[in-house]
Amino acid sequence: MLVRDGLVMIADTRTNAGVDDVSQYRKLRVHSGDARTIGVASAGSLSTTQAAMQMLNEGIVDEATEERETLDSVPSMFRAARLVGKALRMARTGMKSVAQGSEVNFDATLLVGGSIGVGRPHLFLVYPTGNCIECWPDTPYLQIGENKYGKPILDRALTYETDLYETLKIGLISFSSTMRSNLAVGLPLDVLAIRSGTTVPEVIYRIESDDAYFDDLNARWGEALRHAREEIPTPPYAPQPTGTAR
Amino acid sequence: MLVRDGLVMIADTRTNAGVDDVSQYRKLRVHSGDARTIGVASAGSLSTTQAAMQMLNEGIVDEATEERETLDSVPSMFRAARLVGKALRMARTGMKSVAQGSEVNFDATLLVGGSIGVGRPHLFLVYPTGNCIECWPDTPYLQIGENKYGKPILDRALTYETDLYETLKIGLISFSSTMRSNLAVGLPLDVLAIRSGTTVPEVIYRIESDDAYFDDLNARWGEALRHAREEIPTPPYAPQPTGTAR
Repeated sequence: MLVRDGLVMIADTRTNAGVDDVSQYRKLRVHSGDARTIGVASAGSLSTTQAAMQMLNEGIVDEATEERETLDSVPSMFRAARLVGKALRMARTGMKSVAQGSEVNFDATLLVGGSIGVGRPHLFLVYPTGNCIECWPDTPYLQIGENKYGKPILDRALTYETDLYETLKIGLISFSSTMRSNLAVGLPLDVLAIRSGTTVPEVIYRIESDDAYFDDLNARWGEALRHAREEIPTPPYAPQPTGTAR
Repeated sequence: MLVRDGLVMIADTRTNAGVDDVSQYRKLRVHSGDARTIGVASAGSLSTTQAAMQMLNEGIVDEATEERETLDSVPSMFRAARLVGKALRMARTGMKSVAQGSEVNFDATLLVGGSIGVGRPHLFLVYPTGNCIECWPDTPYLQIGENKYGKPILDRALTYETDLYETLKIGLISFSSTMRSNLAVGLPLDVLAIRSGTTVPEVIYRIESDDAYFDDLNARWGEALRHAREEIPTPPYAPQPTGTAR
């Protein structure tokens, strides 16, 4: 989520290769360095993602300048997203050439968000093919992975003018809804928040399964929805003449 | 939705062949006849669905008895679901043989619900291949089409013991959430409700775009969610020491 106040990134930690092979992996990696904090969240192929992250750590040689680029050397978030996209494309191509003819899906999709130097944070979605789109105020969020269950609350609640901690709260409600409907999304959650105009994280936090605040948020949200439902009057739709309607 | 009190079926009326080709078609057909009311809701290929419905109207010859079966002649809801599945399979196979080599997807998925004679209503989901599953009290609903946006509220709110009109209300809230997040789902909505122990509809109703109750439900739900959000305390997660976390 990218609002005037700053950037909030949230990721869960559950990965699966089928329901009988569920593990826990960090899916939000935070890189803090020289006047910068960059978060990279991943969905899809874990092996492609890990290979891409490894390439980023080692640096990727720019064909034009022959210099090795890393997340520490890129001068802007747009260049960071492009570099991540390049790593992702290289990793996916490498996987595919090794596993020729296999039916395995090596696609991974990434979110790249953060601040470099002065100015506002930026947020990008990097597609499996390496190209990217940037988050803009009209729709102040981007999602990857299991995005549908948690989308209605974002559409209803989040605007570019939402306060930073309210944004975090809305994001947690969105995850709460998603986790209730999809077993493949689960705690712990990793959270990163960066306030506009700064390059150090305001929040880096892991929400574990015994987190008092998140438990309370879940309980309050469920209770509030129940109450809201009860407050809505009974539908007045009466029986109508029967017959075959087509 | 199938609860102890009865059956509620809701369908929207928007179909599309791409965002530049959106039309309105009834997707919930209600068949009332001899000691029976049967609702058939559809998602997916409109042409396959229409062909299947046409076959059902004309009747499908049973290979064993050589008799022509229709929704009026089947002795139970299970047989109704099987007959609909047979029609769907025949329609899809017919489409595919005509359009050989084309990339068009002729899959359609149906919900078949209703009451025949005494006893409780039943609800089935018929897959594109014609086989079906039945709704049971553990998860008292089945969805087809764009199901994810509206699923969290069903998971939270609906149980087998929910009252019939409360069930209808929950279904409408689910559609309200879905319509907010997906342009491909839109008013009017068609509603069918059958109370357990009866075979005549308790409600057959079309919710048009100027429906006062549904407008009010939308407004109240949005307002209640906003209020619920505000009542949840601000996340207490404080800044943590910076560094590269992996």
